[in-house]
Amino acid sequence: MHVLITGGAGFIGSHLCDALLAKGHKLTAIDNLVLGRKENIFHLLGGNDFEFIEEDLLHEKAMRDIFKNGKFDMVYHLAANSDIQKGGKDPMVDYNLTFNTTFHVLQYMKEFGVKKFFFASTSAIYGETYDVLDEDYGPLRPVSNYGAGKLASEAFISAFSLTYQIQTWITRFPNVVGERFTHGVIYDFIHKLQKNPAELVVLGNGEQCKPYVYVKDLVAGILHVVEHATDPYNVYMLGSDTRTKVKEIAAMVIEEMGLEAKIKYTGGDRGWAGDVPEFRYDLSKVNRLGWKAAYTSNESVRLAIQKALGK
Amino acid sequence: MHVLITGGAGFIGSHLCDALLAKGHKLTAIDNLVLGRKENIFHLLGGNDFEFIEEDLLHEKAMRDIFKNGKFDMVYHLAANSDIQKGGKDPMVDYNLTFNTTFHVLQYMKEFGVKKFFFASTSAIYGETYDVLDEDYGPLRPVSNYGAGKLASEAFISAFSLTYQIQTWITRFPNVVGERFTHGVIYDFIHKLQKNPAELVVLGNGEQCKPYVYVKDLVAGILHVVEHATDPYNVYMLGSDTRTKVKEIAAMVIEEMGLEAKIKYTGGDRGWAGDVPEFRYDLSKVNRLGWKAAYTSNESVRLAIQKALGK
Repeated sequence: MHVLITGGAGFIGSHLCDALLAKGHKLTAIDNLVLGRKENIFHLLGGNDFEFIEEDLLHEKAMRDIFKNGKFDMVYHLAANSDIQKGGKDPMVDYNLTFNTTFHVLQYMKEFGVKKFFFASTSAIYGETYDVLDEDYGPLRPVSNYGAGKLASEAFISAFSLTYQIQTWITRFPNVVGERFTHGVIYDFIHKLQKNPAELVVLGNGEQCKPYVYVKDLVAGILHVVEHATDPYNVYMLGSDTRTKVKEIAAMVIEEMGLEAKIKYTGGDRGWAGDVPEFRYDLSKVNRLGWKAAYTSNESVRLAIQKALGK
Repeated sequence: MHVLITGGAGFIGSHLCDALLAKGHKLTAIDNLVLGRKENIFHLLGGNDFEFIEEDLLHEKAMRDIFKNGKFDMVYHLAANSDIQKGGKDPMVDYNLTFNTTFHVLQYMKEFGVKKFFFASTSAIYGETYDVLDEDYGPLRPVSNYGAGKLASEAFISAFSLTYQIQTWITRFPNVVGERFTHGVIYDFIHKLQKNPAELVVLGNGEQCKPYVYVKDLVAGILHVVEHATDPYNVYMLGSDTRTKVKEIAAMVIEEMGLEAKIKYTGGDRGWAGDVPEFRYDLSKVNRLGWKAAYTSNESVRLAIQKALGK
């Protein structure tokens, strides 16, 4: 199968490249390298079944040529803004990098007759709720532009899937951690402690409690869902049904760095406006499909810290 | 209160102008007259408290001037594509006229500090389901670009409301009928019968069954919700909990036109790709707020037919 992967040089996208190549697919990866990094796919460059194109998904003329020449069988759309706080400061970030890229990719697929689509969605589409989240949960009330951009994308994906007969797989992730990440709580804590090994300032009260999933685990889950779910439109929660508190992450980072730093909490129940302090996943649908994360949330966090420290 | 109403020369928007002026508000109506018609607001032009501006919401420079000079207290955002079938043929229609207008209006409000927002949403965000629809229902899986554009709008409205403290009222309508409509099943049937009074061709099998609400009834409901709902973010189903079948509408149109036309059904359970053949509303939330439609669905349809025929 000739697969196009957008955001192919990004955190999750580059791991997906590794996994899709291992499955024997021919791969074209696109990335504008705004958030993605060429280092993430450096080991793949020059391979027979791998092509990298530095391009922006919103450049319609260039993208039409790529779709015309590529004759892709499937698109994995990973390109998106991934920094929730950045999107809160400027709504154009999630509007352009997340929503508009999705809408444009759908339009290219419609125009060039590509009939299979994967989309990386998120727990952030639900907004703030203490209920257990499953695929059919409502209402959907995102509290961040990041979540809004993903929900807006899902809206048009749903309509395109039915109207233009595009078979679709959507998986909704919680926090994803592991090699090649570029931001997030573990990344922040390590950088802060490298600057000041004596004290770690933690946004909020440390009680925020969410599921974390190890990136290679997640990528295995994505491929399992695409290979095993056969409906015209497939939506799956994907991640871990265990959770980790921010104060546990702080303690693990300090321990793995061999420090004895004091932790200072800024207070309040969340890290920033748009942060969802607590949520949990119902994974019974994907479990029934035969997939379960190999690592718990705590194990994923520990592993990500160790990898980030080069252990 | 100085109110800006977008799509103010449109079907529902122009009735909302009438109602807001009757409440004593100062009104600025904007419309690009692509779908709206100046005739709809002709009777309001020259009034002391009414200003009409022909402008496109996507013209950022002109719109910034309007927001800067207007110092609006609240925005009623009615501008949108309203033709579901048209949006199925070209996704850019709902992308631009529905989603992009909403996103731009939200950006202008954020920039110029307007803190109250009303949005006209729709049953089409839910997609195809035989369940009874309420405000918290999930999943949301629109089957038309029309529904996608409205859901994508709601996604960013939700995020903007929380992130930038904009008090928000959203009402979700079923089919709306009455004076000044420009398309829809009643409009189509009358036009078809004017061309051929002997036979009426009906798309589908006539069994499609949905709630219809009379436009002036709906507008009264909108104002009731905005005046009585006091949360930072208010979502209400608005319409009728009774329903009307397409074959009943066909019979009423023929009867009101004094014809004896034969009805010919094209067959199938829906009128077109993206049509939702059947749905019903749970209106208990808005009922608890003290509002109930004055007319049943059948009465609304009959009234709309009579008004369209100049009775």
